[in-house]
Amino acid sequence: MLNGAPPPVENNLYRRHRVRVKEVMANEGTQFLDKTITVAGWARTTRNANKGQLLFVEINDGSSGESIQCVLDSEKTEGFDECKNSGGTGASFQMVGTLIASQGDGQAVELAVTTGKLLGAVYGGNIEGTEIGGALYPMSKKAHTLEHMREHAHLRARGRVHAAAMRIRHCMAYATHTFFHNHGFLYIHTPILTGADCEGAGEQFGVTTLLGSDHLETDVTIPIDPTKPVNETVVGAVDYSKDFFGKRVNLTVSGQLNVETHACALSDVYTFGPTFRAENSHTGRHLAEFWMIEPEICFADLSDDINLAEDYLKYCVKFALENCAEDLEFFENSPHGEVGLRDRLKNVLDNPFQRLTYTEAIKVLQKAEKDGDVKFEEDPVWGIDLPSEMERYLCEKVYKKPVCLTDYPKEIKSFYMKLNDDEKTVAAVDILVPKIGEIIGGSQREHRMDVLKKRCEEMGLDAKQVWWYLDLRRYGTVPHAGFGLGFERLILFITGLQNIRDVIPFPRYPQNAEF
Amino acid sequence: MLNGAPPPVENNLYRRHRVRVKEVMANEGTQFLDKTITVAGWARTTRNANKGQLLFVEINDGSSGESIQCVLDSEKTEGFDECKNSGGTGASFQMVGTLIASQGDGQAVELAVTTGKLLGAVYGGNIEGTEIGGALYPMSKKAHTLEHMREHAHLRARGRVHAAAMRIRHCMAYATHTFFHNHGFLYIHTPILTGADCEGAGEQFGVTTLLGSDHLETDVTIPIDPTKPVNETVVGAVDYSKDFFGKRVNLTVSGQLNVETHACALSDVYTFGPTFRAENSHTGRHLAEFWMIEPEICFADLSDDINLAEDYLKYCVKFALENCAEDLEFFENSPHGEVGLRDRLKNVLDNPFQRLTYTEAIKVLQKAEKDGDVKFEEDPVWGIDLPSEMERYLCEKVYKKPVCLTDYPKEIKSFYMKLNDDEKTVAAVDILVPKIGEIIGGSQREHRMDVLKKRCEEMGLDAKQVWWYLDLRRYGTVPHAGFGLGFERLILFITGLQNIRDVIPFPRYPQNAEF
Repeated sequence: MLNGAPPPVENNLYRRHRVRVKEVMANEGTQFLDKTITVAGWARTTRNANKGQLLFVEINDGSSGESIQCVLDSEKTEGFDECKNSGGTGASFQMVGTLIASQGDGQAVELAVTTGKLLGAVYGGNIEGTEIGGALYPMSKKAHTLEHMREHAHLRARGRVHAAAMRIRHCMAYATHTFFHNHGFLYIHTPILTGADCEGAGEQFGVTTLLGSDHLETDVTIPIDPTKPVNETVVGAVDYSKDFFGKRVNLTVSGQLNVETHACALSDVYTFGPTFRAENSHTGRHLAEFWMIEPEICFADLSDDINLAEDYLKYCVKFALENCAEDLEFFENSPHGEVGLRDRLKNVLDNPFQRLTYTEAIKVLQKAEKDGDVKFEEDPVWGIDLPSEMERYLCEKVYKKPVCLTDYPKEIKSFYMKLNDDEKTVAAVDILVPKIGEIIGGSQREHRMDVLKKRCEEMGLDAKQVWWYLDLRRYGTVPHAGFGLGFERLILFITGLQNIRDVIPFPRYPQNAEF
Repeated sequence: MLNGAPPPVENNLYRRHRVRVKEVMANEGTQFLDKTITVAGWARTTRNANKGQLLFVEINDGSSGESIQCVLDSEKTEGFDECKNSGGTGASFQMVGTLIASQGDGQAVELAVTTGKLLGAVYGGNIEGTEIGGALYPMSKKAHTLEHMREHAHLRARGRVHAAAMRIRHCMAYATHTFFHNHGFLYIHTPILTGADCEGAGEQFGVTTLLGSDHLETDVTIPIDPTKPVNETVVGAVDYSKDFFGKRVNLTVSGQLNVETHACALSDVYTFGPTFRAENSHTGRHLAEFWMIEPEICFADLSDDINLAEDYLKYCVKFALENCAEDLEFFENSPHGEVGLRDRLKNVLDNPFQRLTYTEAIKVLQKAEKDGDVKFEEDPVWGIDLPSEMERYLCEKVYKKPVCLTDYPKEIKSFYMKLNDDEKTVAAVDILVPKIGEIIGGSQREHRMDVLKKRCEEMGLDAKQVWWYLDLRRYGTVPHAGFGLGFERLILFITGLQNIRDVIPFPRYPQNAEF
C-alpha cells in the first residue's frame, strides 16, 4: 500500500448490482465513459429544472466524499415520476444509465439515467413520519454544527465531516495492522474484562451481573454483607463471591500488562482494542470508551521503542497522505478543518523526531522563561508532570516537529517502568506532536525481579496482586519495551478535528451512552 | 498476500539487535549460512555433551514453531559458564555466532556460538523463586495437558500449541482486515458500552460505577429507591440516574444494530470487536468475552450476503493454507490436533457451498430418518430450531461441505430479519461447516418501516427503545444485509482445536477472570 497502488478487487462470488461512486469518478470517469452502469446511494441534493422536465439528483454512497450527478428526463427516464417525490436530501435511489461527459459545470461526467428507482423516500414531512418531505430530516442540506451532528450520531455518517473522519479512521486502523504485520508482529487480543487493577491508569468501571442481567429489570437483589450497616438509601459491602466471575471484575484501562505475557514468548506483539476510563471528564480530549494500540517488543531497550514509535507514526502519516488525499483536502478547506493540515503532516514525515531527556527539557523551558520568550502558568522545575502548555511549547515553538521526551522522574511514572542507573529517573518516553501534545507514552519495562518488587513496595502496590506479571521476571526474563497510542488522538492528529467525540462512531462520556 | 509472498521488511529506524529465528531458518538457513548473526529467545531444551565441554541450547523466539540449535563450546564460547547455569527450559539467551551446516541430525543449520549471554535464568528451584532450577517451572519440557496450560495462561504462549494458535489467530485477524479493505469496506468501531437492549442475543453484563470505581474497595454506597423494601441481605431497586451514564448501561452482545447506522450512509462496512454474554455456560464452545466480525452491506439481498460470506470464509482458509503451513502441519500431527486437518480445509476451498432452504433441509432430515440412515434425538419437524446434531449431519454426512441454510421460520429468528413474501419465514442464513456446525449467522434486514414496526410488536419489543434504528427506515431506507462470525469459532475451524478456551489469550467464563 505504501506506493499508493489501489487495492486489488477480486472477481469471486461477491458481485453486486452496482458500481461504487468512487470507482465511477476515478480519473475523471474515463473508465466508465459511455458505458451503462448502475449506481446506488443517498441524495445529497435534488433539483428540478426546465419547468420540471429535468431532475438532477446528486448521489453519494460513502465510498468517497464525491457524488455523482444523475440527470433524469421526464421524456426519457423510466421511473421519473416516482423519483420526483422523494423528499430530497437523504432519499435513497438506484439509478441505471449511461455515463456521459457532463453538460454542466462542476463535474467531468454525469449519469444520463434510463431507469431511476426510488428505494426509500425521506419521511420528514410530519412528526409521525408518514409524510414525504425534508422539513424534519436532521441531516438536511444546510450546514449543521458538529454538536448537532453528535446528537444525531445514528445519521451523521451521511454528513461529509463524519464520513470523511470514518474513512480516515478506517485507513489508520488498516495502516496499523499492515505496519505491524509487515514487521512480523502478532496481534494479541488482550482481555477487556480484568480482575487485575494495578495499571493505575485511571478509574475503572465495574462489570457485574449482581444488578440483574436484564436491562429493563429494576428490582434487583444484591447479596450484601450482613455485618455491615445498611440504611434506607445505601448498602454496605457487596459480596462479590456471588457475582458472575466470583470476584470484582473491571473493564480494562490498558492491555499492556496482559500483552507483556505474550511478548515474553512471541517477542513482537501488539494489542489494538477498546479501553475504558470512568473519569468524570467533560472535555473534548477524553472519552469513557476509546481504542488503544499497544505494541510490546522483547530484546529491546528504550531506544528501540522510540525507533518503533517513530517508524509507526510516520507510516500512518504517509498512508494517510497517499490514500486519503481527497478527505485530507476536504478537511483542509472545511470550516471544521485546519489550514495547512497537509503541510503539518508532511513536516512529520520529513524530519527525524527530536529526542531529549526530561532533565534537558526542563533546562530548555527554564531558559525560555528566563529569556523572556514565554511565561508558563507553573514554574518549570525538575520533578513536575509537564503541563500541556509546556509540551506544546517544546514541539510547536522550540523544535517545530515531534519531540520524544525521555527519562522522567520515577515519582510521576508507573511502577513497571525500568529504573535508570541514576535511580531517580525511569526509562520512559512521551512523544509530543504539534497540535495535540502527548500522542504516545511508552517505556522500557523493569525486567529485574528484585527492582520491580522494590518499586511495587515504594508505590504501595501489593506484588501478590500481580503474581503472574512477576512470573515473567522469574522465568527467563528479558529486556523489553512498549508504548501506548490512543487511537482517537491519532485521528485528531491526522484530520485536524478538535473534538474527540467527532472521530469515533458513538462517543461515550458522562451522562451519555445513547444509541 | 494471496500469492504467499513473504511480507516486505522495511529498513527504517526500527532496527533491532537480532535476526528472527523464522528468518534464519527459512530455506534451510541458506540466507545466513556462514554469516555472523545474533539470535535471542527462550530455551526449549538445554543439553550437555562431551563431558561438559559442549552445551546445546535450542532457542525459540515465537516467530515460528521452529527453534535454532545453538552450540556452545567451553573452549571457544565467551560466556559459556554463565550460560550453563540457566535452569534449562524457559531460560532466555542472546547468542552471537556463525551459522553453519549442522553437525548433527534433525536440522539443516546450527549456530556455532562465539558469545553467549544468559538474559534470564529460570528461578524454579525453590518456592521463593530465589534458586535457579527447572523443578517448579510450569512450562517445563514435559508434555502438559491443555488444562494445565489454561491454568498458566500467562506463560502458555511459550508452549507450542498456544503459540501456534496465536500465530494463526493473528493471521486470521489480518486476513479479515485485508479482505474487507480490499473490497472497499470501512472498519467501524461500534460501541462496547450500550444503553440499548434489543438484540436479544443473550444475557448482558451491567457496567457501573455505583459499586465503586476502585477494585479494592469493598464498602460501597448504592443509591437505592427508598420506597422499595430493603432487608439485611438484599436491596430493592437501584437508582441508575446516579450512575456514570445516568442510566443502566450494558456490555454489547453484538455491534450489528450500531453498524447498520454507518452502513446506511457508507454502504459497505464491518465491525470487529469484543462482545459479551453473561450466560452461565461451562462448555468448550462458549465464552463470556469473545470477538465477533460483523459486515453489513447496502443495496444487497440475502443472496449477496451469502456470496460475501462464502468469499470471506474461503479467503481466510486460503490465507491460512498459504501463510500458516508450518503451524497447520504441527496441528495435524499434534496429539491435540486433527488428522486430515488440511484436507478438510482444502475441501472448503474446492467446492461451492451448498445452499438450501430450512424447509428443504427439514425434508432431507425427515427422509434420512425414514430411510433408517440416522436417528435424531428430536424429531425433525418444521418449526424447530435445528439442534447441532442435525446441522452437523447435513454438512458432514449429506453434503460433505459447508451448507448455507436459508429462510427460517420467523418465530425462531430475530425481529430485524426481513420477512419473506410467505409471511412465515425470514430471509436469514446460517452457515454450517463440518466439525463446527454453525459458524456464521446472517440475514437480509427488514428495511420496510411498517413491517419492522409490526415485527417489533409481535415479538414484544418496544419500538421506542430503538427509535434511532427505525430512523434508518424513515429516512432513505435501503435493502441491506449482513452476518456475524464468532472469531474464536473461526480459529477452532482452522486449527482443529476442540476447546474455545485454547484459542483466545485469556478466556473469560463463569468464575474465571484470572490474569
